Amino acid sequence: MNKLKKTIERIQQIDSSLIEKTQKRLDNLTKPQGSLGMLEELAKRVVGITRNENPVIKNKVIFTLVSDTGVAQEKVSAYPREVTTQMVLNFINGGAGINVLAKHVGAKVIVVDIGVASDIKPHPKLINKKINYGTKNMAKGPAMTKEEAIKSIETGIELVEEELKNGIDIVGTGEMGIGNTTSSSAIVAAVTKEPIEKITGRGTGINDDTLKNKINVIKKALQINKLDSEDPIDVLSKVGGFEIGGIAGIMLGAAANRIPIATDGFIPAAGTLIAVGLEPKIKDYIIAPHNSAEIGDKVVLNYLGQKPLFDLDLRLGEGTGAALGISLVEAAVKILTQMASFEEAGVSKRND
Amino acid sequence: MNKLKKTIERIQQIDSSLIEKTQKRLDNLTKPQGSLGMLEELAKRVVGITRNENPVIKNKVIFTLVSDTGVAQEKVSAYPREVTTQMVLNFINGGAGINVLAKHVGAKVIVVDIGVASDIKPHPKLINKKINYGTKNMAKGPAMTKEEAIKSIETGIELVEEELKNGIDIVGTGEMGIGNTTSSSAIVAAVTKEPIEKITGRGTGINDDTLKNKINVIKKALQINKLDSEDPIDVLSKVGGFEIGGIAGIMLGAAANRIPIATDGFIPAAGTLIAVGLEPKIKDYIIAPHNSAEIGDKVVLNYLGQKPLFDLDLRLGEGTGAALGISLVEAAVKILTQMASFEEAGVSKRND
Repeated sequence: MNKLKKTIERIQQIDSSLIEKTQKRLDNLTKPQGSLGMLEELAKRVVGITRNENPVIKNKVIFTLVSDTGVAQEKVSAYPREVTTQMVLNFINGGAGINVLAKHVGAKVIVVDIGVASDIKPHPKLINKKINYGTKNMAKGPAMTKEEAIKSIETGIELVEEELKNGIDIVGTGEMGIGNTTSSSAIVAAVTKEPIEKITGRGTGINDDTLKNKINVIKKALQINKLDSEDPIDVLSKVGGFEIGGIAGIMLGAAANRIPIATDGFIPAAGTLIAVGLEPKIKDYIIAPHNSAEIGDKVVLNYLGQKPLFDLDLRLGEGTGAALGISLVEAAVKILTQMASFEEAGVSKRND
Repeated sequence: MNKLKKTIERIQQIDSSLIEKTQKRLDNLTKPQGSLGMLEELAKRVVGITRNENPVIKNKVIFTLVSDTGVAQEKVSAYPREVTTQMVLNFINGGAGINVLAKHVGAKVIVVDIGVASDIKPHPKLINKKINYGTKNMAKGPAMTKEEAIKSIETGIELVEEELKNGIDIVGTGEMGIGNTTSSSAIVAAVTKEPIEKITGRGTGINDDTLKNKINVIKKALQINKLDSEDPIDVLSKVGGFEIGGIAGIMLGAAANRIPIATDGFIPAAGTLIAVGLEPKIKDYIIAPHNSAEIGDKVVLNYLGQKPLFDLDLRLGEGTGAALGISLVEAAVKILTQMASFEEAGVSKRND
């Protein structure tokens, strides 16, 4: 709890005076004012976050946290539980979607076992931060203890701190774990108070019967766990997952170090709610690249007032949307730092 | 006319059997089926266009066509006309938005003077294909002769043919020219029959009075020129621009050579209408990356049934949206060709 507290204390408001100053600079580049729309917004945000007027997005790091979810026992997914373990090997071997997209945008993928239900052979490309062998089944009781919830968040903070030595200019939050849209829906329902039907989607692609079952399981979990929706640690411990806590921790750790965060889809959205619940100032550090195909994602975006950058109907997770978002943030920063001004280029300004 | 005819004859339907085959391949990659949404659609489209089951997007070429528009005399823009010439130098010197974004995505920018109103000193980075010193003022008569309209399209075809020796895996269409949203609105009005008010936007950022004037100028141009809206060459010659014809030509030339095309915003959208009018099969070759901030763009997207990839409120032109779109197409193709299959990765398939 000490690490968590100290990290939260270090998080400051992003610098709004620098944002205004940067808008003036953008207005003097050789383009009609505001004509690069959201790229200009992104550039300003990165300056406000980093407090660096000439930021560089070079070291791009995507954390893909893998964990098992106890509620998978309730048949809420289209895929068997062992897929979680199998996908870890796929991540390590570079064959997954996130590997391909991260490489495309020049980002590093850090694969973390934060709670896979099986033992995985040590591998130089796998970071072992296992908190437990999966969470417990939230339909029967709390998914984890309060201590485990805190540990999952502090693990996220640790991951950022350990990578700082290599340099981090932007962080992407990814995840994988069979059953984890179910725990995410439960968190989103608890925090936003929206009807469960509105925030429970088809995850990996479940059919109507499984969706009905998934909704009932979430209702049951929220009922029996009697959670305090004002207490993010309580929500996380009762219906969350280690990867969701870990993502919240990465966000807190990044914000404490003035690093912009690209989130990704529905499970990181649940992590965002936990992080924002712990420290509202963090909201401005988080860029939501896309509106994923998982229906609850839009609910969280609206709840947080985030405007996504694109909507490509993605629902893979792993950090894939974060990867594409990171590339846009990098593009935005290059616009700010590499374009010529009217004076430099000898281009006339507006008539009026 | 001969080159135009021959090029159109070479354009074939994209290969739908290969698209089906590619969907099966995508379904066998280590991800839930369809979970990469529009990236999967893009990958299939590139296979259908190129007829290559393992396409590579390596040589990325953005043509930025620069031209002056006679109607700029009617005070339809916020910027003086000399900006067109000044921006050519900015493109050549690498200081413009398109230079920064093209470099970011690893694309080459080919700057073409297709009708700038002044003489520009020869430069190795500038291709001189000047058809005339700007178009004529369409509010007073035809913008160009029928011969010039055909020449502008054939110039676009030529540009593609000349670059083929260096290899082209995807083409982006960009443009710059003070006053050219005005001619684009006129083309879009003529072809789609939508009200001029609905398709006339603020271009570089004009005020209410200038917008009112712009709308009146377009109405006048359409009235006095008595154009045959079923004849794309007639529409182009009477209210178009050299860069718009050139973009239509690039599209036809690319399609004839099975090269996918990333368009960009409102002026290329007008070019798309000319190209589709000449050869409807071309529609499937054209990817519309974004819904630009220029209001008429949405009208064209709807008219053509195109679904944009992102909406970043961009309205700079130059090919900037094309650059970002090209990066997404490249990402899509890498997903298809670099991800591991379930068998390769030893990952279990669905339960059902």
